[in-house]
Amino acid sequence: MEPELSNMGREMNKLSGVRAIAKDIEDVLRERGKKKIYDFGAGNPAVIPEVLAEVRKTVKAVSGSKELGNVLCRYGSSQGYAPFIKTFIRHMNRFAGWKFGEENVLVTPGSQTFFYYAANALAGRKGKKNAKILFPLMPDYTGYTNLGVGKENLAGAKPKIEITGNHEFKYRVDTKNLKLVGVGLVVFSRPCNPSGNVLHDAEAREIVGQAARKKIPVIIDSAYAPPIPNICYAKMKYIKAENAIHTFSFSKAGLAAARVGVAVGDKKLLEPMKAFQANACLSPPVFGQEIARRMIESGKLQGLCRDVVKPFYRERQGVFRKACGKYIDDVVPYYIHKSEGTFFAWLWFRGLPCSDWELFGKLKKEGVIVVPGSPFFAGESAKMRHAKECIRMSLAGSIGDIDGGVKRLASVVNRLYKN
Amino acid sequence: MEPELSNMGREMNKLSGVRAIAKDIEDVLRERGKKKIYDFGAGNPAVIPEVLAEVRKTVKAVSGSKELGNVLCRYGSSQGYAPFIKTFIRHMNRFAGWKFGEENVLVTPGSQTFFYYAANALAGRKGKKNAKILFPLMPDYTGYTNLGVGKENLAGAKPKIEITGNHEFKYRVDTKNLKLVGVGLVVFSRPCNPSGNVLHDAEAREIVGQAARKKIPVIIDSAYAPPIPNICYAKMKYIKAENAIHTFSFSKAGLAAARVGVAVGDKKLLEPMKAFQANACLSPPVFGQEIARRMIESGKLQGLCRDVVKPFYRERQGVFRKACGKYIDDVVPYYIHKSEGTFFAWLWFRGLPCSDWELFGKLKKEGVIVVPGSPFFAGESAKMRHAKECIRMSLAGSIGDIDGGVKRLASVVNRLYKN
Repeated sequence: MEPELSNMGREMNKLSGVRAIAKDIEDVLRERGKKKIYDFGAGNPAVIPEVLAEVRKTVKAVSGSKELGNVLCRYGSSQGYAPFIKTFIRHMNRFAGWKFGEENVLVTPGSQTFFYYAANALAGRKGKKNAKILFPLMPDYTGYTNLGVGKENLAGAKPKIEITGNHEFKYRVDTKNLKLVGVGLVVFSRPCNPSGNVLHDAEAREIVGQAARKKIPVIIDSAYAPPIPNICYAKMKYIKAENAIHTFSFSKAGLAAARVGVAVGDKKLLEPMKAFQANACLSPPVFGQEIARRMIESGKLQGLCRDVVKPFYRERQGVFRKACGKYIDDVVPYYIHKSEGTFFAWLWFRGLPCSDWELFGKLKKEGVIVVPGSPFFAGESAKMRHAKECIRMSLAGSIGDIDGGVKRLASVVNRLYKN
Repeated sequence: MEPELSNMGREMNKLSGVRAIAKDIEDVLRERGKKKIYDFGAGNPAVIPEVLAEVRKTVKAVSGSKELGNVLCRYGSSQGYAPFIKTFIRHMNRFAGWKFGEENVLVTPGSQTFFYYAANALAGRKGKKNAKILFPLMPDYTGYTNLGVGKENLAGAKPKIEITGNHEFKYRVDTKNLKLVGVGLVVFSRPCNPSGNVLHDAEAREIVGQAARKKIPVIIDSAYAPPIPNICYAKMKYIKAENAIHTFSFSKAGLAAARVGVAVGDKKLLEPMKAFQANACLSPPVFGQEIARRMIESGKLQGLCRDVVKPFYRERQGVFRKACGKYIDDVVPYYIHKSEGTFFAWLWFRGLPCSDWELFGKLKKEGVIVVPGSPFFAGESAKMRHAKECIRMSLAGSIGDIDGGVKRLASVVNRLYKN
């Protein structure tokens, strides 16, 4: 039976650009049969053996512990598992120089769910007006754009582009032109998925400050930030501000399927999200919180992030850059975004003779899966030509595949620019 | 910073009646210090030693398995974990005589989250009109009433009351007066939290049939139904209908903190909820699905539910009834709802000289925590005098406490009716 959807149901029935290509990828896999495929599309992190070994040890320890009943069998609190919250905030306070209490923390089944609560609690229909979500620097994570508040309520600012080296560039936020009128929520990721950009401290502080003067909450998505998972190669400080909510994720540190997201901020800002969660899902899953708690308490998780996870992805960024230099003709005007964090590479082909979606299609035919860049732009920024000249590539795969995949990609791109 | 909430944010910031008393309970615990408290309020299931032992064994086995990476470290599918879905639907098909495929299943982080998706995708604002949620038999689960669609969109039908024995009654659905105009979704729990009622097969079929003729989806919340967790003492058959969505929970079988809810129904009905989930939370937690999968595959979970969980709660229902007979004066016109399922007792005090909330307050002072009945009524049904004469009591505690708590409750109630 085909159901008649509500307005919200119609909004949430749309899949954002990145997820919409999942079917494409399945098709390629089927068509190519046993032929080699280079998959740079997925957002899934690598399962790194050293991390898995520690997770395994911890699960085994929990299986024999007296806490097992509390972490699997009983409903948890709608705020999150108290022992985890205590450990997490003590650890983060020490790291970031904060003085937050346990009441400043909300655990959700992944940080995506927190974005959903916040978008719907703070933007969309507000009385008889609309309140927008502003993305102060596009491109940014596509997961922010399909949260139910409607395309008309998404505002994405155009980036400034700075060429920082041979075949390298960096996005800068245009802080003089932030349009904060009619905005209910500001969101950005730092480090940024897809670009790997890390907003300078001063830029981030400026955005948060401008929003604070208008009493607008700002979510700073720290899914790749130090100290967990620490997939970050630039220096960055955490911002302190009454209107800032920091969100953290354990997904890229090796617990993606456990669904543990954490939001930290002013208690009054988090209260409505906690109520939202109590009503919409009762309480977040607890088991992953206990695994994370033990691994933070022992210091193992921070150590693995610093000594294993970060070098693992950093090495791949190096391999990728080297392969681009080796295989892509130097005359091709390609620019790789400066790698400051995340495990993605973001490529800009200036004056690309076709659209990003067409390039995606051409690469797919050659067995190379990438993600077209345009879904990462919203609002005004989506109208730039630049928005149709980029692709995102995940570097979570093997080093051999990164080299081999870039070689094949280069053959397509070199041809494109020769015609 | 106090945020300015959207319309949705204001809706979701309200806590439903049952959860609103959580603070009350904390206050009592603090005030009474070391004095005895009888807590019949919580919705938390008991952690039954035999069940915990099997869960423990299973967690240990998973810790050593090759699946560990998939069930903790990588993002799962937005539909749920394929091996779990396969096992679950094969098992349910066999049990219920269904012929559903894997595409007919959606796993969510608890079934509450599915109710949230469905309420918002199918009811609330629809074009320029509103679509309501109809509860065909009130009282029903309070968790359905704070899902963001607004009080004006909740319609709760008045029950028919049948006296079935000395101090015993049963609710019957008034199928002749179901008002299905302007309704986008019908929901009921079977067995019913709070009353313990199990709608007769014919009644359930009639509701689903009337809704089908108007193409309205019906969610049948089977959180207490056989075969998992099987806290059901009446005979009941699963309904087969194109517009019926059956939701299942592993919470009462011993995995509440793992957050595993399952919806089964027509693929076209589930598709929008799957997209909703992909956008709002990426994917449900996987670890609990793997624990459940192994325990279903071995048959242990069904066996424990039948041989341990069901008798555990059934015994408590017996103790409760016996205690009521022993301690409450026979002249008090109290009626216990026929116990057909769930671990709750639902008491109706006919002609109660005060409101249910006042009774709640009086009992609280004596250290007895119950849940007032009125939050379980919505729409038209909330206007009945009956809606203010009931309380819900959870029987998940110890047998001694059930006897002792009823004794103390009786002293309050006997006095009330003497005045």
